[in-house]
Amino acid sequence: MRIDLNADLGESFGPWIMGHDEALLSIVTSANIACGFHAGDPHHMRTTVQACKDRQVGIGAHPGFADLTGFGRREILDIPSDQLRAMIIYQIGALQAIAQAEEISVRHVKMHGALANMASRDRHLADNVIQAVQELNTSLTVVVIASTQLEEAARSQGAKYVSEIFADRAYNDDGTLVSRREPDALIVDPKTCADNILRAIETGHLRSRHGVPVRVSAQTVCVHGDTPEAVSIASEIRNRLDRAGVTIATFD
Amino acid sequence: MRIDLNADLGESFGPWIMGHDEALLSIVTSANIACGFHAGDPHHMRTTVQACKDRQVGIGAHPGFADLTGFGRREILDIPSDQLRAMIIYQIGALQAIAQAEEISVRHVKMHGALANMASRDRHLADNVIQAVQELNTSLTVVVIASTQLEEAARSQGAKYVSEIFADRAYNDDGTLVSRREPDALIVDPKTCADNILRAIETGHLRSRHGVPVRVSAQTVCVHGDTPEAVSIASEIRNRLDRAGVTIATFD
Amino acid sequence: MRIDLNADLGESFGPWIMGHDEALLSIVTSANIACGFHAGDPHHMRTTVQACKDRQVGIGAHPGFADLTGFGRREILDIPSDQLRAMIIYQIGALQAIAQAEEISVRHVKMHGALANMASRDRHLADNVIQAVQELNTSLTVVVIASTQLEEAARSQGAKYVSEIFADRAYNDDGTLVSRREPDALIVDPKTCADNILRAIETGHLRSRHGVPVRVSAQTVCVHGDTPEAVSIASEIRNRLDRAGVTIATFD
Amino acid sequence: MRIDLNADLGESFGPWIMGHDEALLSIVTSANIACGFHAGDPHHMRTTVQACKDRQVGIGAHPGFADLTGFGRREILDIPSDQLRAMIIYQIGALQAIAQAEEISVRHVKMHGALANMASRDRHLADNVIQAVQELNTSLTVVVIASTQLEEAARSQGAKYVSEIFADRAYNDDGTLVSRREPDALIVDPKTCADNILRAIETGHLRSRHGVPVRVSAQTVCVHGDTPEAVSIASEIRNRLDRAGVTIATFD
Repeated sequence: MRIDLNADLGESFGPWIMGHDEALLSIVTSANIACGFHAGDPHHMRTTVQACKDRQVGIGAHPGFADLTGFGRREILDIPSDQLRAMIIYQIGALQAIAQAEEISVRHVKMHGALANMASRDRHLADNVIQAVQELNTSLTVVVIASTQLEEAARSQGAKYVSEIFADRAYNDDGTLVSRREPDALIVDPKTCADNILRAIETGHLRSRHGVPVRVSAQTVCVHGDTPEAVSIASEIRNRLDRAGVTIATFD
Repeated sequence: MRIDLNADLGESFGPWIMGHDEALLSIVTSANIACGFHAGDPHHMRTTVQACKDRQVGIGAHPGFADLTGFGRREILDIPSDQLRAMIIYQIGALQAIAQAEEISVRHVKMHGALANMASRDRHLADNVIQAVQELNTSLTVVVIASTQLEEAARSQGAKYVSEIFADRAYNDDGTLVSRREPDALIVDPKTCADNILRAIETGHLRSRHGVPVRVSAQTVCVHGDTPEAVSIASEIRNRLDRAGVTIATFD
Repeated sequence: MRIDLNADLGESFGPWIMGHDEALLSIVTSANIACGFHAGDPHHMRTTVQACKDRQVGIGAHPGFADLTGFGRREILDIPSDQLRAMIIYQIGALQAIAQAEEISVRHVKMHGALANMASRDRHLADNVIQAVQELNTSLTVVVIASTQLEEAARSQGAKYVSEIFADRAYNDDGTLVSRREPDALIVDPKTCADNILRAIETGHLRSRHGVPVRVSAQTVCVHGDTPEAVSIASEIRNRLDRAGVTIATFD
Repeated sequence: MRIDLNADLGESFGPWIMGHDEALLSIVTSANIACGFHAGDPHHMRTTVQACKDRQVGIGAHPGFADLTGFGRREILDIPSDQLRAMIIYQIGALQAIAQAEEISVRHVKMHGALANMASRDRHLADNVIQAVQELNTSLTVVVIASTQLEEAARSQGAKYVSEIFADRAYNDDGTLVSRREPDALIVDPKTCADNILRAIETGHLRSRHGVPVRVSAQTVCVHGDTPEAVSIASEIRNRLDRAGVTIATFD
C-alpha cells in the first residue's frame, strides 16, 4: 500500500503571509503551489519551490481564476474555452520556469478552488482543463478529485493523472463532496480524518456522511485545510499511515 | 551584411486592443511579446505566438514591471534583487509554456520600458536582469540596448546576447538615447530613420543628434514606435535594407 | 414627451483607449462612467467627468465586477452580500470624489455588464444592489433595465430610479433582452433602432423579436453599443427624436 | 497638553489578514485606513470603518501607490501630476462613500509608504499631494510628517493639517527620519519610544540618534509599527501619556 499526501502551499501574496507551509512541508509528499492568479507571487513561488526541493516534496502547479480578492473561490462564468486554456498554461509555465531556475521540475498540476469545483461537475470545462495540460506537456500528472467529471475527462483524454480524496471533507453517498455551505461539510477531528483515510486506503471505500460505503481509488490525499486544525489533521494522518505500514511517497 | 528587425507585439489587454501587430508582423523578424505584467494577457500572448509562428517571426519574451496603468513605463524602485529576478523568470516562463503549447520555442528576451531603461544605466540592476535569464535558460538570447550597462552585464556574464539600435530615437554623443522627455527625442520621418539605420549597418556608426559619429555594433533594430508613423517607418526601413542587399533575418 | 439618452463612457484604461467618447458626448444626455473595476482609471474618470461637465451631460457611476480582463462581462458568483454592497459603494464614492473635485455631482448609478444582468434576473442580488445605493445616498437615481428584478427591487425599496430600454438590442416576448449569445440579439441598422425607440416612446410599447408588443415605461434609452455602428445608431436616434418633437434631456 | 495617537489600520486584503487592528483600536484616537491600492479592499474598509465608529476612533483615508505586491513601499516615478492627484482623490472618495454609508465622516488624510516618503522630500510632489486634497475637500485635515516638504506644502497652500512624529523611528539631526535601510532606524524598546514621545510633547524637542535636540511641533504620534512590538509600544506610549496627564484625543 502506498499513498501521496498533498497540500496547497505558497499562498502568501506580497506582504501578506498565509498558511502553515513550514509545518506542512515536513508532512506532505506533494505541494500544489499557487501561481499568482488567486494567490502567490513570483517571489513566494520561488521560495516555496526552494523549500520543496530542500524537503524533497514533489512540486505541482495550482492554477486558479484571476481573483485575488476572492482567493479563486468564486465561480467565474463565461470564460471562452481558448482563454481558459491559455490562462492555465500561463500559470503552469510561470511555475515551470521558476522550478527550472532551481534545477527541478514541476511534476503535477492541480486546479484550485472554484476552477477545480466547476471542472469537477462540468464535463465541457473538465475537457478544456485537461486539454490545456495536454497541450503543454503530456508528462505532467493531473491531480483530479476522484469520481468527478475531471477524472472522467482525464481518463478519456488518456492524460496521466492521479485521483484525490480529502481528509477533512464529508462525502455524499454518490462520492461527491458535501458542499462547504452545508454545516457538516468539514471534519475537524484529526482522529476521524485519519480513520477515514486509512479505511479508504485499506478497503477502497470511503464512508459517506450517511454511513454508505463509497468506492474510491485514490493515489493521493489532500491534507490541506483552512481550519485551524489543518496541521494537526495532516500530522495525525501521516502518523497513522506510518504506523499502518502504508508507504507515504509521491506518485510516479 | 545581415540584420534582425524587432518590434513589441501582443500589447493588447483583455478587451483593449493596442498596436499594429498585423502590419508589423509582415515587416519584422523578431517579436517581443508582452507577458501580462505591463500589457498582454494569456489569450493575447497565445494568439500573438500563433501569428508569429505562421509568419516565421522569432518569438521573444518582453518582461516588464507589474504596472498595467503605467504600461511598465514608470520606474519602480526598491524591488529586492531576488524578487526582481523571480518576476522576470515568471514572465518568461509564462510565454515559454504558451509557445510550447504551440510547438515552438521562445528564442529571446528583451526587457520592456522602465525596466530596460533602468537596467541600461544601473549596472547592479543590469547584472540582476541578465542573471535572471541565465538562471532560467542560458540558450535564450538577451536583446540589450547597444553600449549600455545591460550590454556590459551580458558580456561580463557570458550571456548569449545581441545588441539593439533604435530606428526612431535620437542618440546622444555618448551613444545613449536622448530621453523621451526632450523635444527631439523621437524621429518621425521614415526616410531619416532608414538613412540612420542603413548608415549604422554599413559603417558601424550612428550619428548623434549633434552629428557626432557613435560607434555601434548592432545585430537587431527596434522598429517599434509609439508614433502614428510606426508602421511607415518600419516599412521604409525594411524596403531600404532590402534594396541595399542587407539580409533581413532573425539572429541565431 | 421627454427622454434621456445614456451611454457608457470613460472605458479607457491606462494606455488603452476604448470607445467613441468624443462623438457620443455630443449625442447623449447622461454618461455612465466606468469606475476602475472593469474599466476606467482615476485619470480617465476625471477627464471624462470634465468632458461631461463641459457638454452638460449628466454624470453617473457605472460600477462593475473587479474583472479588467473580462471587462466585467463575466458572471462572478458567490460574492457575499456585504462584500458586494461595499464594492458598489466604493466605486460610486471614487467617482463622487472626482466629480466633487470638478465641482459637479454624480446624479445617477447604473450597474455594468454581468452585474447588471445578474441583478436583473435575481431578486436577492437586485435587492442588494439597490440597498447599496440607498445606504450611500438616497438622492442618487438608479438606472434599471425596464421590467426586470432590478426595477422591482428599486420600486420595492422606494429608491429613486428611472427605467431604461435599449436601442440596439432585440427583446423577448416577456420584455427581457435576447441574450447576446443568440444570433439576432443585436440590431445594427440605425433606422430600425430609431424606429423601435420612437415607437416605444410614443406608444409605450416595444415590439419583441417575434413582433409581440411589450409594454415598457422608459425614461432613458441606452444608445451605447459595442458595434462599430454605435455612433451612427446614437446619432440617428437623436435626430429622429428631435424631428418627432421629443424633448431630449436628462431625468430629474 | 494634548495629543492624537494614529495608526495604519484596515491593511488586510481579500483572504489575507494583516495587523493588530483589534488591539490598536483600543489605543489610538485616529485610524489611517488603507483604500485598496496598496492594501485594503472595499469589505475590509467597511468593517474597519464600523470598528472605528464603535470605538470612537477618528477615520482617515490612507492613499498609496497602486502596488499590492510591494505594499505601496516602492517608489514609483514618472506619474504625471494630474494622474497622481486623480489617484489620491479616487482613494479618499472610496473611503468617504463607505464612511457615509455608515453615517460617519472621513476626518483626515495621510499618505502611505513610498508616496508619503517621496512627498516628504520632493516639494513638487508635496504640492500636488496637498493640492489633491484641497481640490476634493478643504475641510479634510492632512496628516504630514513634521518638518518635511509635505508640511511646507500644506502650510503654503493654507491646508488644514496636523504634524506627526513617529514613536518607533530614529531621527536624523535635521529632523528627517533615519532611513529604514539603516540598521538603527527602528526603535523596538517600548520604554525608549515612550520616553521620546513624552519628551517631544513636553519640551517640543525630539532627540536625534546622535543626541541632538530637534525642534518639533506635533499634534499626532504615529504609534503604528511593523515590528512585532507594535502593540506593546503603542500601549506603553498611551499609558505613559495618560500618567503624565496628557490628554489623548483626536485633533479638531
